[in-house]
Amino acid sequence: MPTEAHDLRHHGDAEVRDDGSALVDLAVNVRADTPPVWLRERIAGSLGSLAAYPDGRAARAAVAARHGLPTDRVLLTAGAAEAFVLLARALKVRRPVVVHPQFTEPEAALRDAGHTVDRVLLREEDGFRLDPRAVPEDADLVVIGNPTNPTSVLHPAGSIAELARPGRTLVVDEAFMDAVPGEREALAGRTDVPGLVVLRSLTKTWGLAGLRIGYVLAAPETVADLERAQPLWPVSTPALAAAEACVSSQALAEAAHAAHRIAADRAHLVAGLTGLASAGLRVVEPAEGPFVLVRLPGAAAVRRHLRDLGYAVRRGDTFPGLGEEWLRLAVRDRATVNGFLRALERALTSTAR
Amino acid sequence: MPTEAHDLRHHGDAEVRDDGSALVDLAVNVRADTPPVWLRERIAGSLGSLAAYPDGRAARAAVAARHGLPTDRVLLTAGAAEAFVLLARALKVRRPVVVHPQFTEPEAALRDAGHTVDRVLLREEDGFRLDPRAVPEDADLVVIGNPTNPTSVLHPAGSIAELARPGRTLVVDEAFMDAVPGEREALAGRTDVPGLVVLRSLTKTWGLAGLRIGYVLAAPETVADLERAQPLWPVSTPALAAAEACVSSQALAEAAHAAHRIAADRAHLVAGLTGLASAGLRVVEPAEGPFVLVRLPGAAAVRRHLRDLGYAVRRGDTFPGLGEEWLRLAVRDRATVNGFLRALERALTSTAR
Repeated sequence: MPTEAHDLRHHGDAEVRDDGSALVDLAVNVRADTPPVWLRERIAGSLGSLAAYPDGRAARAAVAARHGLPTDRVLLTAGAAEAFVLLARALKVRRPVVVHPQFTEPEAALRDAGHTVDRVLLREEDGFRLDPRAVPEDADLVVIGNPTNPTSVLHPAGSIAELARPGRTLVVDEAFMDAVPGEREALAGRTDVPGLVVLRSLTKTWGLAGLRIGYVLAAPETVADLERAQPLWPVSTPALAAAEACVSSQALAEAAHAAHRIAADRAHLVAGLTGLASAGLRVVEPAEGPFVLVRLPGAAAVRRHLRDLGYAVRRGDTFPGLGEEWLRLAVRDRATVNGFLRALERALTSTAR
Repeated sequence: MPTEAHDLRHHGDAEVRDDGSALVDLAVNVRADTPPVWLRERIAGSLGSLAAYPDGRAARAAVAARHGLPTDRVLLTAGAAEAFVLLARALKVRRPVVVHPQFTEPEAALRDAGHTVDRVLLREEDGFRLDPRAVPEDADLVVIGNPTNPTSVLHPAGSIAELARPGRTLVVDEAFMDAVPGEREALAGRTDVPGLVVLRSLTKTWGLAGLRIGYVLAAPETVADLERAQPLWPVSTPALAAAEACVSSQALAEAAHAAHRIAADRAHLVAGLTGLASAGLRVVEPAEGPFVLVRLPGAAAVRRHLRDLGYAVRRGDTFPGLGEEWLRLAVRDRATVNGFLRALERALTSTAR
């Protein structure tokens, strides 16, 4: 399949939303349960002030304080998806480069804005780790995810910072960083890396995909450029309430706890997957995000069989640099993982026949 | 003041949000009370499914059915504000023309997208009514509001339709049309006007400014062009729930009732204002929207005095074609209007001294 044929607009939610609503969801990289009760109450509390236009100032200040930054380095967005569109449209860019495999939306947004996008493809034989020298010297916009969706690779902050250059915007998508214990390798909050733009999401850890809230951390001039390209009142009042709540110290403590739980659940999943090596299944390791990438023979057939057995997983072939033999699996609790592993073993056995 | 100096990014919410929170708000053109309880409950009910990415299909189908259109003629947006940005960025436009005075956001969005915008200024001596011949023949994008904010003029649908041309996109902002009894002069739902793009808001009638929800009705190709420029998942799950609820037959009946109530309240306000003609105050009539535009000597001083007396009104001088002597007043219930009229009379008297 030629690279250009990748469906950059395919996302995990499409794997579960139609006939898939009855499936156990290992396809979408968000917390599977609803937002916690305390957070839902905070959001519900904001519904009393819906008649007023959204006022994002308190949420912006709270996010800035959480990262130890002045407010003019923070821009709240309607999810990271809006941030990608703003970056693609608002910045003066001649040669954008996207480091793949990764979330496809940044490249799709750049192309939609009329850019020709170059790709750096990290390689399986290198464990999908970043080699900063692979990025063309004249790239004036570089986009990389950390930890990377779908490979679950956590790049060293230093390797990413090495990509910074005068005149280059360095976009680091840290949408899944709060699932990494201690947020080690985070660049959010750093002001010493020229051209750095960090994207954060509140969607994944907090089960808020439906609310559309995320933020950008960047130099004040860049924030101003992006803000000018935003519609008026870009973030809704309930989303602003959620943002403010999600950067409170209570929330940060809860997120830190969740990161450790995810690490334990992931270790359980990876151990089970490693037990299927004899069926030709390989896990990309070390996995550091709330999902793992696996390579296995007959992945498409296995995926279909898993659906019949009640499990939705994410196809890998829509990610540039991957092919039909790849699947991405979201980390779930041990009981769900155990059921999934049994189903996967059945699917592998029957597909191999 | 030169035309270019108008602050196109000034909006009524700025008049009430800081020290103005204690003021009676006649500055913002939205329902002053919170959304009705049944609607708030529908929105609150959606908070249980926030963990999933928004799925706009049911809301889109409901909006399409409300206007008797196929779904491919409907695009849900994060408020009308997002629609203006999409129109400015996604359509191939060489000569955009905005009919003023009107809501300034369409022109601001066009300028931000790099366009040079021409203005047609409707004149006070014509009652701010549209003369279709005033629009340059080679304009390939024309933006007009109906009823128009801030003039409250309702243009005949036929006059607006006369602006349609082959190769021209005709954008009609009907954000306030559901406040007009019978929605007479609406173009929403029409498919016989070439290049027609109608914008609708659910913000005003339903007290949902904080939720960011609106929609575009246009030819399928135009909808597809705009959709490509949208971020992924542009409208939040609570906003989608609201959209679906607000086009239900119960909601339409309630909106129709509200339109008649607004008309009665507006008649009461206009009668009171007419009584102040001896102080030099003039009302633009007939007013057909949920607000009225007035001209009066010393308007800036009167506005400041009204703030001291507890009332926020909208300055008119940021609208192209108006000047410092203009104010816009939102229609409120009779009791609020009575209190306001007394305050206005005091302010006029003391300012005239």
